[in-house]
Amino acid sequence: MHPDAPRAGSPRAPAPVRFDLDRYLSSARRAVLDEIRAIVGSKGRYDPILYQLMLDYPLREAKGLRPALCMATCRALGGRLEAVLPSAAVLELYHNAFLVHDDIEDASLVRRGAPTLHEQHGVPIAVNVGDGMLSLALQPLLDNVPEIGLGPALRILQAVAHMCRETVEGQALELDWVRQGAWDLGEEDYVELVVKKTGWYSFITPVRVGCIAAGADEATLEGLSDFARAVSIAFQIQDDLLNLEGELDAYGKEIGGDLWEGKRTVMLLHALRTCSDDERAWALDLLARPRPDAEGARLGTLVDELHARGSLDAAGHAALQEALARATGGVALAPKTEPEVRALLALLERQGSLAHGREVAERWAAEASTRLDAFLARTPASVHTRFLQALVDYVHRRAR
Amino acid sequence: MHPDAPRAGSPRAPAPVRFDLDRYLSSARRAVLDEIRAIVGSKGRYDPILYQLMLDYPLREAKGLRPALCMATCRALGGRLEAVLPSAAVLELYHNAFLVHDDIEDASLVRRGAPTLHEQHGVPIAVNVGDGMLSLALQPLLDNVPEIGLGPALRILQAVAHMCRETVEGQALELDWVRQGAWDLGEEDYVELVVKKTGWYSFITPVRVGCIAAGADEATLEGLSDFARAVSIAFQIQDDLLNLEGELDAYGKEIGGDLWEGKRTVMLLHALRTCSDDERAWALDLLARPRPDAEGARLGTLVDELHARGSLDAAGHAALQEALARATGGVALAPKTEPEVRALLALLERQGSLAHGREVAERWAAEASTRLDAFLARTPASVHTRFLQALVDYVHRRAR
Repeated sequence: MHPDAPRAGSPRAPAPVRFDLDRYLSSARRAVLDEIRAIVGSKGRYDPILYQLMLDYPLREAKGLRPALCMATCRALGGRLEAVLPSAAVLELYHNAFLVHDDIEDASLVRRGAPTLHEQHGVPIAVNVGDGMLSLALQPLLDNVPEIGLGPALRILQAVAHMCRETVEGQALELDWVRQGAWDLGEEDYVELVVKKTGWYSFITPVRVGCIAAGADEATLEGLSDFARAVSIAFQIQDDLLNLEGELDAYGKEIGGDLWEGKRTVMLLHALRTCSDDERAWALDLLARPRPDAEGARLGTLVDELHARGSLDAAGHAALQEALARATGGVALAPKTEPEVRALLALLERQGSLAHGREVAERWAAEASTRLDAFLARTPASVHTRFLQALVDYVHRRAR
Repeated sequence: MHPDAPRAGSPRAPAPVRFDLDRYLSSARRAVLDEIRAIVGSKGRYDPILYQLMLDYPLREAKGLRPALCMATCRALGGRLEAVLPSAAVLELYHNAFLVHDDIEDASLVRRGAPTLHEQHGVPIAVNVGDGMLSLALQPLLDNVPEIGLGPALRILQAVAHMCRETVEGQALELDWVRQGAWDLGEEDYVELVVKKTGWYSFITPVRVGCIAAGADEATLEGLSDFARAVSIAFQIQDDLLNLEGELDAYGKEIGGDLWEGKRTVMLLHALRTCSDDERAWALDLLARPRPDAEGARLGTLVDELHARGSLDAAGHAALQEALARATGGVALAPKTEPEVRALLALLERQGSLAHGREVAERWAAEASTRLDAFLARTPASVHTRFLQALVDYVHRRAR
C-alpha cells in the first residue's frame, strides 16, 4: 500500500497537505535539548571531565523520535507541554545513557557518524559518564510533583523504573546469546529481545509517560502501548534491513554492519532456518569468528603475519596466540574476511530473507496502523495526532 | 587515647559492658540481605543471566557498615525498623552497583577475596549487571510512600539522587587525575575526592536517610551529616594505611596494593610533597608505568621475553610493541617491578608518610567523636546509640 493512500477502515479523509514530519521533530528536539542542557547544568571543574561528556551523544545529529512521540501523545490527549517536557527530556537522557553503555558492551566503534564515547575517552570514563546520565534523570521526575500532581508523578517514576528493568533484561538476553553462541532462535525470541532491549525505552515508555502526563484513562494507555510495541518491532526490523542494504554498496570501503558483528536479526535467523545443513554449518562457523577490527583480532592478524614472513618462530607464534586468546577471553580464531561476509549476505538474498524481513516489518507496521486508527477515531484531530499518523506512515515506507 | 577510655567532654559514663559491634552488624546484615533478595526477586530465564549476578557482590563476605549505620541512625532517633529497612537495602544495593562499575573503571582483579565480576563474566555483562542494580533501586523508594508518608519518601529519593551525582563526580575526578597523571595535589584535593567518591554513599547518605526516615529535624540531620563526613575521611585513610601495611608482609606472594595501582592517598601525596626533587622525579616516573598484571603489560612482557630468547626478531619486536601500545591506548612502558614498588614504600616510610597518615586519620576520627558526642548528649541511650559510639571507637583503633 502506498503510504499516502487513504487506509481502508480509517474513518478520516487523508490529510489535505502532506504533514511536515521533520519540522515537527526538529521543533520538539530543540525544546528537549534546551531541557537536557538545564538538567545537566554546569559545575565548574566537573564540566570538562563529566557534564560536557554527558551532552556529547544527545547533541549529535539525531531525529529525536522518542521525546517527540512522548510529547505528541500527551498533547494529542489534551495535555500541556509543560506537563510532559521534563519527562520527555529524561527519556531522551536515559536513551543516550543506554547508548553509551551499549556501545561499550557491543564494542561499537562509531555512533551517529563519530567515534563512540569509549573510543574517544576510554571505557572507564564512558562507564562513569553513562552512570552520571542515569543518575541525573531522577531529579526532574521528582520535580514533576507540583506541575502534574503527586499521583501522575509517581506513576511516571514507576514507568521509568519498569523501563530500566526491561532494558537491562533485553541487554542481558542478547549478551547471553552472544556468549553462548545461541543461533537456534525463532521469531518470537527476536520479538522478545527487541521489545525489551529497545522497544520499552524507545516507544512504549514514551507513549505511556505521555498518557500519564495527560491524565489519560487506562484503556487509552494500554491501547497506545500496544501501538508503540508494534511500531518498535517494525522499526527495529527496518533498522536491520537498512543496515544490511547499506552493506551492498560498501565495496570494501569500510567495515561495518550487523553481519560483521553477528547480530541476531529476523533476516539472518530466517536464512539460518531455511538454508541447507552444510550452509548452516558454514555460516555458524563464520559467525563465531571475530570482526577484523575487534580488540585482539588486529593483534592476532599481526602475529600471524610476523610468523608468515619469518620474524616469529613457531614456538613464539603459539605462545602469543595463546596469550592473546586469554587476554580477549576467547579462543584464537581468524577474523571474518570481506569475501566471507559477502558470501553470507548472498546466502540471505538466496533464501529470500530480506524479502521475508520486509514482510514481517510490514505486518507489524499494519498492526501499528490498526491500533493507531482506533485511537484517532475517538480523538480530536490536531497537529499532534497528525504527527502520530505521519510517524506510522514513515514506518510503512521506511525500508521498502 | 585508648578507645575504651571515657572521652573528655563526653557527658556519659563509659558503657559498663563492651558493646558487641559484630553482633549488631551481622543482625543488621541478615535483615538487609533478606530485603535485597526480595528487591532483586526472581524472573525465570533472566535469573542466571542477570538477577543472580546482581546478588554476587552483596552476598560476598562484608561487614555491612553502611546499612547498619542507616538503620542505627533511624532507630536511635526513635524511628521504626520498617520505616528504614527498604531504604537501607537500597543503599547497600547502590554501593554494590558502584563497586561493580568501579572495578571495571579501575581494572581491579579481586573484590572481597574473589575475582571481580568483570573478570568472571567479562566487561559487557558486568556493565549491564551494574545498570540493573541501579535500576532496581528506585521501586523500593517509591514503595516507601505508604510506610513513611509522601514528604519523607520524596526527600529520601532526592537524597539518593544527590548521592549518585556526588559519587559520579568523585569517580570523574579520580579518572581525570589518572588520565592527566596529576600528582601535584594537596590534602584538600584528597578530601574532596574521598568525600565525593565514597563518603556520600558510604556514610553521609546512610545517615541522612536514617534521619529522614525517623522524621528528625534539620539541625540533627546536618549535625549527623558532619559526623558522617568526618568518619568517611578517617575511614578511607585507614583503608589506605591498611593496604600499604599489607604490602609489607606480601613478600612476592601476590601482586596487589595501592602502590602498584598508583592510587592517590594521603601517604603517597605526603611523600611526594616532602621528598627531594630527584626522589620525586624517580617516583613519578615509576607511578606512570603500568602494573605487571594490567591488560597489555602481560602481553608486553611476553613479547620482550620472546625477543630476548630469539623467537622474535627486532623488526617484529618493534611492530608488536607499537601495536600493543595502540591497543591499550598508551605508550609502551615497562611494567613496575617488585623491587621498585618496595623502594617506593621505603620512601614513604623514610618521609614519615605512614605516621602522617595515621595523624590525619586520627584528627578526623576525633572530629567525628566530637560531632557524635554532641548528638548523644541529647539523645536517649539505646542499643542503637551504643552502636554509633562503638563504630567511632572502632574507627579510632582501626589502623594503629
